[in-house]
Amino acid sequence: MVARKRSRGWLECRQRIRVGRACAGWAAGSKVDGVSSMAGVAGSTTVKPLPSDFIQSPVPADIEIAQAVEVQDVQFIARDVGVRDEELELHGRAKAKVRLELLKRTARDPDGMLVVVGGISPTPLGEGKSTTTVGLSQALGAHLQRKVITCIRQPSQGPTFGIKGGAAGGGYAQVVPMEEFNLHLTGDIHAITAANNLLAAAIDARMFHEATQSDGALFKRLCPEQGTEGKRVFARGMIPRLEKLGIETRNPDDLTEEERSAFVRLDIDPATVRWQRVVDVNDRFLRQVTVGQAPTEKGHEKRTGFDITVASEIMAILALATDLADLRRRLGCMVIGTSRLRNAEPITADDLGIGGALTVLMKDALMPTLMQTLEGTPVFVHAGPFANIAHGNSSVIADKMALKLVGRDGFVVTEAGFGADIGLEKFCNIKCRQGGLKPSCAVLVATVRALKMHGGGPPVSAGTPLPLVYKEPNVELVRLGFANLQRHIENTRNFGMPVVVAVNRFHTDSQDELDLVVQLCKQAGAADAVIASHFSHGGKGAADLARAVVAACEQNIEKPFTLTYPDGMSLEEKIRCVATKIYRAKDVHFEELARESLARYEAMGFGHLPVCLAKTQYSFTADPNEKGAPVDFTLPIRDVRLSAGAGFVYPLCGSLPTIPGLPTKPAYYDIDIDLESGRVIGLS
Amino acid sequence: MVARKRSRGWLECRQRIRVGRACAGWAAGSKVDGVSSMAGVAGSTTVKPLPSDFIQSPVPADIEIAQAVEVQDVQFIARDVGVRDEELELHGRAKAKVRLELLKRTARDPDGMLVVVGGISPTPLGEGKSTTTVGLSQALGAHLQRKVITCIRQPSQGPTFGIKGGAAGGGYAQVVPMEEFNLHLTGDIHAITAANNLLAAAIDARMFHEATQSDGALFKRLCPEQGTEGKRVFARGMIPRLEKLGIETRNPDDLTEEERSAFVRLDIDPATVRWQRVVDVNDRFLRQVTVGQAPTEKGHEKRTGFDITVASEIMAILALATDLADLRRRLGCMVIGTSRLRNAEPITADDLGIGGALTVLMKDALMPTLMQTLEGTPVFVHAGPFANIAHGNSSVIADKMALKLVGRDGFVVTEAGFGADIGLEKFCNIKCRQGGLKPSCAVLVATVRALKMHGGGPPVSAGTPLPLVYKEPNVELVRLGFANLQRHIENTRNFGMPVVVAVNRFHTDSQDELDLVVQLCKQAGAADAVIASHFSHGGKGAADLARAVVAACEQNIEKPFTLTYPDGMSLEEKIRCVATKIYRAKDVHFEELARESLARYEAMGFGHLPVCLAKTQYSFTADPNEKGAPVDFTLPIRDVRLSAGAGFVYPLCGSLPTIPGLPTKPAYYDIDIDLESGRVIGLS
Repeated sequence: MVARKRSRGWLECRQRIRVGRACAGWAAGSKVDGVSSMAGVAGSTTVKPLPSDFIQSPVPADIEIAQAVEVQDVQFIARDVGVRDEELELHGRAKAKVRLELLKRTARDPDGMLVVVGGISPTPLGEGKSTTTVGLSQALGAHLQRKVITCIRQPSQGPTFGIKGGAAGGGYAQVVPMEEFNLHLTGDIHAITAANNLLAAAIDARMFHEATQSDGALFKRLCPEQGTEGKRVFARGMIPRLEKLGIETRNPDDLTEEERSAFVRLDIDPATVRWQRVVDVNDRFLRQVTVGQAPTEKGHEKRTGFDITVASEIMAILALATDLADLRRRLGCMVIGTSRLRNAEPITADDLGIGGALTVLMKDALMPTLMQTLEGTPVFVHAGPFANIAHGNSSVIADKMALKLVGRDGFVVTEAGFGADIGLEKFCNIKCRQGGLKPSCAVLVATVRALKMHGGGPPVSAGTPLPLVYKEPNVELVRLGFANLQRHIENTRNFGMPVVVAVNRFHTDSQDELDLVVQLCKQAGAADAVIASHFSHGGKGAADLARAVVAACEQNIEKPFTLTYPDGMSLEEKIRCVATKIYRAKDVHFEELARESLARYEAMGFGHLPVCLAKTQYSFTADPNEKGAPVDFTLPIRDVRLSAGAGFVYPLCGSLPTIPGLPTKPAYYDIDIDLESGRVIGLS
Repeated sequence: MVARKRSRGWLECRQRIRVGRACAGWAAGSKVDGVSSMAGVAGSTTVKPLPSDFIQSPVPADIEIAQAVEVQDVQFIARDVGVRDEELELHGRAKAKVRLELLKRTARDPDGMLVVVGGISPTPLGEGKSTTTVGLSQALGAHLQRKVITCIRQPSQGPTFGIKGGAAGGGYAQVVPMEEFNLHLTGDIHAITAANNLLAAAIDARMFHEATQSDGALFKRLCPEQGTEGKRVFARGMIPRLEKLGIETRNPDDLTEEERSAFVRLDIDPATVRWQRVVDVNDRFLRQVTVGQAPTEKGHEKRTGFDITVASEIMAILALATDLADLRRRLGCMVIGTSRLRNAEPITADDLGIGGALTVLMKDALMPTLMQTLEGTPVFVHAGPFANIAHGNSSVIADKMALKLVGRDGFVVTEAGFGADIGLEKFCNIKCRQGGLKPSCAVLVATVRALKMHGGGPPVSAGTPLPLVYKEPNVELVRLGFANLQRHIENTRNFGMPVVVAVNRFHTDSQDELDLVVQLCKQAGAADAVIASHFSHGGKGAADLARAVVAACEQNIEKPFTLTYPDGMSLEEKIRCVATKIYRAKDVHFEELARESLARYEAMGFGHLPVCLAKTQYSFTADPNEKGAPVDFTLPIRDVRLSAGAGFVYPLCGSLPTIPGLPTKPAYYDIDIDLESGRVIGLS
C-alpha cells in the first residue's frame, strides 16, 4: 500500500517536472554554484539540476526515481554536446549510437580532461563506484556548469535477472531510462554473443570436416568449381591464410600438393582450443558441458564450457579497438588454439576465414551509445569487459569521442571496474597504453563500511543482514582499515595522477568516522578527500567532490603519466612488476603450466603485450579473505592465457568463475510489466 | 576484374538516382499503368519505380543492387503510409519500430485486403516466394499506385553465415538495406535468445535448488525476511503459482506445511522437460549436449540440446500475440514439463515466477520493424518462426497494423513459409484462426524448375550443378509435374480464396513451358496465372501479376473463409483432417508415443488447440523424396509436442533438424567489410 501511495506522489512530481522544463525556468535557477559558466553549457537546454522538491527521503527505489523524470529526446542531448545530427543513429527516443565519423571530424580539436574513477578493495555489496561516476558527472554538468560526459560500461543482462540487479548507478545518480540501460541497450552484447558463437561453431565444424575428409575433398569443397567455366577461386576470406603460409599464387589450381595440404588443413590440436561459447545469462549448468553428442557428429564429442558474454575476448576487443580497421585486425588475429604439427603454430580467426564476418557482425557495436543522467548530462555507454580475465574498462572509442566533444576545459568521467589494484591498474597499463589516453586525475571511491571491513570487521556478504558494527560508530575499525585505501592512494599517485578520495556517505556513518577518513586521506597524499551524498541528493550532493576534481585536474596539467612497466620487458617481469609494485607481493610463484605458457607466448612473438592479471578484487592478494594491506605474501600464478586480439596475456591467480548462477530466488521474481502503462516494474 | 568494373558502373548509376530523386521528377513518370491513383499514393514522395536505365542484364549480385539504391529515411516511408512520428521508434535511418499504440488509434478504421503468398512444394533451391512477395508489392505500389505494405519474416542469422545466405528477396525485388535486414535487424531474435535461455537457466537452477534443499530452506530463500521488521512477503512473480494451487492467503507465514511444500517444490520430472537452449548460429555440435558437468553442479548433469533461435516457442508466440497483455499471458503459460507427483501437472513459466521477466525482455520485440523495398514501398519485418515445429508465418500484429494503414482499398502482401501444404495451411488454420484475419486472395508461386522436378526430373540439391533437364525445354515433364501445383490450387481454393499463380520466370524457361503452366493453372481453377519477372525487372516485371491480384481480390469481397477443422474437434481428428484434406493421405498412423501425448494434452485441457504438423515441405507425404501428388499413403505421427504459449500442439511426422550445421566452406568466407567505405561485402 505504501508503494502505491508513493507512486501517486511520483506522478504528481513528474507533472511538475514537465511544467518546469516546458517553461525553461530551470537554467537560471540551476546556477547554485559560483563557478563561471562555460560556452556550450551556459546555453545548454538539456543539463538541469533536479529540483529540490523532487528529492525525497528516504530515497525511493531506483526504478521509481528513474521513471519519475521525463527523459529528454537524446537528439537534444547530442546537439547540446556538439554531436551533429548526421553523426547520430537514433535507437528509439532515449538512446542513439554515435558514428565514428565524429572522430575524424574532430581529430584536430583539443582534448578535455580525463577523470578515472576507481575504488577501495570493495565489500561484496559494492561501494558505489558507478553511482559516484554518475553523481560526479551530474555535479560537474548541472551544478558547476562544466561540459562533461560520463563513460561507463554496458552491464551484462545476466546479473540483472540473477542476484545483482542493474548497474545504471543508484538513487538520484542514475543513467536513464534505467530499464533500457540494463536490458538489450542497442544490442552490442547480443552482437558479441552472435560473433563469439559463430566462431565457436566454425572451430568445431572445421575440426569435424578435417577429421572426416581427405585433403582433396576439403580442397574441392573450399574452392569449388564456379561459373560456366568451372573455375576454382579463393574466397576473400582465404587470403590471410595464404599470406601466412607464404603462398603467393592466387590461383587454387597452382598450389603444390604440400601447399594444398597446408592450406586446407588447419590441424587444430583439440587440447589447445580454449575458445568457449557464451550466453548473457546466469546459467550455471553451462559451466562445463560436453557437445557433439548427436549421431550426426559421429562420435566427435568434446568437453567445453560457456562463459557469460561479457567474458568473451570479443568484448575486450570492442573496448580496446580504436577504429573499424583496428577492429578488423584484432578480430582476425584472435588465437583460438595451436596446430598439432607445424611447430604448434597459433591458429587465428583469419585462418578460419571468419575475421571479416565477425567484423560485419560487430561493426554497429563499435559505435558508442549516447544516453543521459537524471540531470540531463550526456553519457556514453560502451563495452563492458570482465575485470579479471579482461581489463574491466569501458571503451577507448567512447573516451576519445567524449574528450573531443567536451573540449579543452571539459571533463570526461570514466569508470574503472573492480578495486583500483585491478581496474585502475589495467586502465593505465592496458587501456591508456593501447589507446593513447592520459588521465588528469583519479577519484577513489571509499566507504566507511569497506574501511571497517578492512580494519577487521566481520565478513560482509550479499543476501545476509549486515552485522551491527557496520551500522554503529566505530572510529577505530575505520582507522585500522585505512591501510587498504592508503595503498590504493599511493599506487594511483605513482602513475603520476593526483588522487581525490570520494567518501560515499551512508546514513549510518558518523561524522567522526567521516572526518577521520578525510583527515587520513590528506595525510596519505590525496590531493583532496570529500564526503559525497549524490545517492541521496543527486549532483548537488557531489558538488564539493566536483570542485575538488576540477582543482586537482587544473593543478595536474603537463605532469607526466607513468606506466608500471615498459612494453619491452619480458612477460614474466611485467607480471612481477604488477605483483610487487601494485599488490606489494614479496614474490611471485609461477606454476609449471604458467611457465610453459609464458615461454610459448614469448616464442610466438607475443612478449611485447601487456599483462592482465586475473585476481580477486576483494584483496591485494589472490585470497579474497585477506583484507587490509597484506605484506610478505607470494602471488601464485596458476596458468597464463592469451588474448591476442585484445592484445594482452592474462595470468590466472587462482580460479575465477566466468559464468554466475541463479540463486533460489532470482531477481526475475520481482520483474514484470505493468500492462496498463507498459512500464517495467521491479527492476533494481 | 569484371566485378570491379561493374562496381564503378553502379556508382554512376547511384549518382543518377540521387539526382532523379532530388528533382522529384519521378512521381509523374512513374504512372506506367493506367490504373487510377489513390489518395495517399498519388501524393507519395517515397514510392517510385526503379528507372529503366538502372536495371541491368545479367542481374548483378543482390548486395550490389541493394547498395546501389539510395535508401530513403524510414521516417518518410512511415509518414507516407500514415504512421505518426510519435508512433515511430527509429533504429538508425533505415529501420524503425512502430508502437502498438497505432493499433488502438486505428481500431475503428477499415481493413485493407490481405494477400497471402504461398508456393508449390519447392526444390531445395527455393522457388522465389520471398522475392515474389516483394516484387508483387513493388508492382502494386510503384506501378499500379496502390497503397501496399509487405509483411515478411525476419530471417535467422544462422543460415546467412552458413549455406543459404540472406532472405531479403533477390535481384530487383528486395528489402533494403539488405545487410541490416539480414543481420541483427532491431534485435528481436536476440531478445528471443535471451528470453529462451533465461528460462532454460531458470529450469535447471530450480531443479538443482530443489534437489539440494529441504522445503524449509527453499521457503526461507524464496520468501526471505525483509525490511527492518523482518517480514516475509511473496514476490509478485509468485502470485500465479499461489492462484494455481488455490492458496488464498498472501502472507507467507500463513501457509500450512502442505501448502508450503506445494508452493516451494515444483517437483519437475526431468524426463518431461523439453525446453531446450537456443543460439542463432548454425552450430551442429550443440544438437545434443550434456550440461551441468562442473563440480559446482554436484553431479546433476543432464542430457539436452540446442535449437536455432527461430525454433523457440517464444518466436511462435511473438508471431501470434495480438498485444502486450496477450504476450504476457502466452509467455506465462508456456509449459516446460510436468511434475513428478501431483498428477503430472503441467509446469509453466509462471510457476517459475519468470513470465513477467520474459515479457520485459520481449516487449520491444513486439513492435514490428518498418523497412522499405527497392522501389520505396513500406515493409514490416516481424517474427520468423520455423515452418515445421511452428507455423512459419510473420506476425499477426504486423499484418493487423498493415491492414489498418493501407485502408479499405489497399493491399497487404504477407508470406507463408514453406510449400502451401505447410505454410499456407498453417496461415489459415493457426494464424488467421488465432489472429482473426481473413485473406482476400492467395498467390501461389511456382517455377518451371519445380514442376519438372515433380514430373520426374532428377534430384535438385544446393551446392551441386543443376542437371541439364532443368535448363532445356521439356514440356512433358512440366505437364507431369503439374499434379503437385494442382493439388495446392485445389487446397487453397477450399479455404474460400481465389488463387493467382505467379510463375516465377527463369531465363532458361521456354515460352512453350510457361504457356503450358498458365493454361493448366486456369484449367485447374486458378482465378488467374501470370508469368512474372520481378527478379530481373523489379516491380515492373510483376505488374501483370499485381493486376491479376487486384482483380481477384475485388471479385472475392464478402465470400466466406473456411478453416479445415473447428476448434471443438479432438486433436486426433484435427490431425486426420489436415492429413487427409490437405496432404490427401489415405490414413494416419499414430505411434504409441503420439497416442499417449495426445491423450495427455486432451486431459490437461489443451484439446481445443489447433494442430501444427511438423512435416517436410518437399513432399505432400512425410518422405521428402515423394514428389508430385502422391496418393494412397499413410502419414506417420511419431510423437506430439505441446506449445501451450503459442497455442498449438505439433505432431512430428519423422525427425526434423532444429539446428543446421556449417558446411566445409560456409558463406562467411566471402563476407567482409570494406574498410574505406564501411560497407558490407560478400553477403548473398
